Amino acid sequence: MPRALDPILHVAIQVNDIELSVGWYTSNFACEVAYRDESWALLKFENISLALVLPDQHPPHVAITRDDLTPFGKPVPHRDGTSSVYIHDPSGNNVEMLKLA
Amino acid sequence: MPRALDPILHVAIQVNDIELSVGWYTSNFACEVAYRDESWALLKFENISLALVLPDQHPPHVAITRDDLTPFGKPVPHRDGTSSVYIHDPSGNNVEMLKLA
Repeated sequence: MPRALDPILHVAIQVNDIELSVGWYTSNFACEVAYRDESWALLKFENISLALVLPDQHPPHVAITRDDLTPFGKPVPHRDGTSSVYIHDPSGNNVEMLKLA
Repeated sequence: MPRALDPILHVAIQVNDIELSVGWYTSNFACEVAYRDESWALLKFENISLALVLPDQHPPHVAITRDDLTPFGKPVPHRDGTSSVYIHDPSGNNVEMLKLA
């Protein structure tokens, strides 16, 4: 039996202006605004969510879920009940190991 | 009826060493190597593919498919029969508009 593959929960890219960027993505692509405030937004695509984040708030990253974050470091709790640890690939790219609420 | 959402075909991140990076991702995550050579690799996750590219070969990007690329610029044909045009969001992030073979 083939093993189950990990899903990538979201991809986050840095933008300079959340409102402007939400306008650009939603006018160019078929996607839905799942969340937005002045500091970040989450756009739902068919298979994945695209997070738009400000450079001083979050690094660019991909997020992969894990039930147990302890092998990766000290989890940081978020207001929505999730928690996460950032790890880095050999080139320094960020991977957010995310425990769902 | 809710409109269909665009899928994101792949996300590409830049790495310094393809072989080293493929080893790191496949040892940390449940993903499959769909393609690899010395200049890039494609890792299949459950819902999306993650491309690992060298900085002098490709920019970091997300890829979204379109049947007609002409509104976006002059399509560049690829060896596998696909073609694409890079466009940029207001912050300069790259989006590859990709026509499948």
